[in-house]
Amino acid sequence: MDDKKISRRTLLGGVIAAAVVPMKATFAKEIQKGLPLDEEIREDPTKVIGLGPSAVGKRATFEAPIRKFSETSSRTPLQDFYGTITPSDLHYERHHAGVPNIDPNQYELLIHGMVESAMKFTLADLKCFPSVTRLCFLECAGNFRTGKEELTPQDVLGLTSQSEWTGVMLSTLFREVGVSPKATWFLAEGSDAAVMTRSIPMEKAWDDAMIVYAQNGEAMRPEQGYPARLLLPGWEGNMNIKWLRRLEISDAPYMTREETSKYTYPVKDKIRMFSWEMDARSIITYPSYPQKVQRGWIEIRGIAWSGRGVITRVEISTDSGKTWADANLQSPVLSKAHTYFRYLWSWDGSPTEILSRAIDETGYIQPSLKQLTDARGAGGGYHMNPVTAWQIKADGTTWFKPEKA
Amino acid sequence: MDDKKISRRTLLGGVIAAAVVPMKATFAKEIQKGLPLDEEIREDPTKVIGLGPSAVGKRATFEAPIRKFSETSSRTPLQDFYGTITPSDLHYERHHAGVPNIDPNQYELLIHGMVESAMKFTLADLKCFPSVTRLCFLECAGNFRTGKEELTPQDVLGLTSQSEWTGVMLSTLFREVGVSPKATWFLAEGSDAAVMTRSIPMEKAWDDAMIVYAQNGEAMRPEQGYPARLLLPGWEGNMNIKWLRRLEISDAPYMTREETSKYTYPVKDKIRMFSWEMDARSIITYPSYPQKVQRGWIEIRGIAWSGRGVITRVEISTDSGKTWADANLQSPVLSKAHTYFRYLWSWDGSPTEILSRAIDETGYIQPSLKQLTDARGAGGGYHMNPVTAWQIKADGTTWFKPEKA
Repeated sequence: MDDKKISRRTLLGGVIAAAVVPMKATFAKEIQKGLPLDEEIREDPTKVIGLGPSAVGKRATFEAPIRKFSETSSRTPLQDFYGTITPSDLHYERHHAGVPNIDPNQYELLIHGMVESAMKFTLADLKCFPSVTRLCFLECAGNFRTGKEELTPQDVLGLTSQSEWTGVMLSTLFREVGVSPKATWFLAEGSDAAVMTRSIPMEKAWDDAMIVYAQNGEAMRPEQGYPARLLLPGWEGNMNIKWLRRLEISDAPYMTREETSKYTYPVKDKIRMFSWEMDARSIITYPSYPQKVQRGWIEIRGIAWSGRGVITRVEISTDSGKTWADANLQSPVLSKAHTYFRYLWSWDGSPTEILSRAIDETGYIQPSLKQLTDARGAGGGYHMNPVTAWQIKADGTTWFKPEKA
Repeated sequence: MDDKKISRRTLLGGVIAAAVVPMKATFAKEIQKGLPLDEEIREDPTKVIGLGPSAVGKRATFEAPIRKFSETSSRTPLQDFYGTITPSDLHYERHHAGVPNIDPNQYELLIHGMVESAMKFTLADLKCFPSVTRLCFLECAGNFRTGKEELTPQDVLGLTSQSEWTGVMLSTLFREVGVSPKATWFLAEGSDAAVMTRSIPMEKAWDDAMIVYAQNGEAMRPEQGYPARLLLPGWEGNMNIKWLRRLEISDAPYMTREETSKYTYPVKDKIRMFSWEMDARSIITYPSYPQKVQRGWIEIRGIAWSGRGVITRVEISTDSGKTWADANLQSPVLSKAHTYFRYLWSWDGSPTEILSRAIDETGYIQPSLKQLTDARGAGGGYHMNPVTAWQIKADGTTWFKPEKA
């Protein structure tokens, strides 16, 4: 590609695909005759009637995005995605005793404790209440992996996904049962074999907590808590209790097994527990390992999110962190939602590192790994949200940069 | 349910599920002992370790939303949905010669005609350009069915769906090839066996037309044009050419087979052709046939959309069209997008009809069938967007109202 051409294109306001090629002369001749393009296309789809409509569609056979999974979790293939919706069948999973099989016709949610009238709600009951729809991310509190160069975005940060959720505001149900004004906490209990339980401060119920039964337009998937789950926008994933069967209203936390044994962790000489909000973070999904780029214009793309509200800025560095510039954010930018960002970069072919850094509406700036370990000690653990880097080598190959704490 | 209870709940600000029942005494006793709820739940999911994570998830076995399909089209099950995303495998279809099987590695898009340099773009080329993500609806120009009471929302208006699309602005590509300032039209050609073609005015290219390759976060589905299609937000579905292989720039429309034989139709004593924008319309999806409702509070729900921009108001009538009141619109309300609306109604048990009427940012008001036929004659045909009604009978059964033109 010659420089003159690039300059013309840039002036025209268009930006350049690395490999745009002029059409072949023979092909051009075909076109001028106004003939079909048969000779040019080896297997001509215009000569074969295609498959007809169907009841439920399938992915193209050439596309096979998959979750990488272990016994307890599966990770969303962020590098395969564009935009902000995670297809429901590729939403990350983190289970404590697998996915229970729940008959929606037998489903009941009990709300009791410090209430005027303890009540049970069927799924049909929940669907009768005024409903709300919102887009938001979910993220596992333990979402972060490092240690080697051969890591994809799915490996590094695949324990986050985003859906459009529909359900009833928890505050609506809490008014229905008449929650005591003295109540300060509630227990949420799932009906999986772990009987997963967490204590949640009452403020979240009066703010934006929901009981949701629909995901990306349709009934929620089994792995996300079918038929109904708790949704705590912006808060750590495990608190968004799936297969929700019971809410008990109280005036103290319950100190359950999960919240004391698992999601409590050392931070220097102290123990941190009840760390609700997921801190602002970001990841570049293109280019990333194992992709290869070519010299010239590259649109750096990725997602940023914050459990505290709206992402106000994403900064990109293409010189290993020396200088930073603002990425474009795809509108609409929604609170507590994956926000797609893009940044146009002309790569000159020199080895370098590219990084992204998220800033949210509270002014919080995504920290470096050094800042995190200075503040917390080298223990790692939960809520690790450091700025991460991709190394671009001279040959265009892209590798994760496994920083040491 | 006694009136005193309803009144208390209303005062508390909660709104009422028709069938909320107080919990059973024996169950309450179990709870007070702090024991698991084993006796109450017949098959207790807490006693069985569930299935582990997987590479790709599946719907719950209790949920089976399907498209109803014929030889040439399939219809989205609008009555099964919540919110505004159509799951990609349930997006409506309208094919002219089935779904071609296209190898993305052989895919090429040719842009030629009144341009500085005719060019061919591979799929990788298209993905290199600056990208844009937007939510918008697609709708078949022929979307409307009436004639009997036993029709669901899927039957009446199932030829519309909504996705989050990602791709490159057509204007970016047109700058790249250097479209002549004298060009006023372009031809879009698909690589299905119909070699589907439409003429499109150049204004749409400079406005919001896109070439898209991703749908709801991942690669576009085969039925929607894999690996790349034209997206003309708000314009009739058939013009959004799928499996797009060629754009030819010109200064006149091409008068192709499809645009002259199919999407041209009589309107009184004239012939209407090139009717681009889908007019504002709406449909109540709950309650609808064959659902049954109970006396008391009902949240009427549905979708409204306009090919001309933002929906500014949806009006609901619960008295057969005599009086109208505003529904709530779920934010964010986006241009040329399905907009979810909700309206809280207390049904007293009398037979009635419920209707919805959409109004868009141009001030356009969704017409009655009589207004449409007065203006256009009784021919029916394309772009039929009348206000529709559901009949609620005294027993709570809900039926479509098949108005006669």
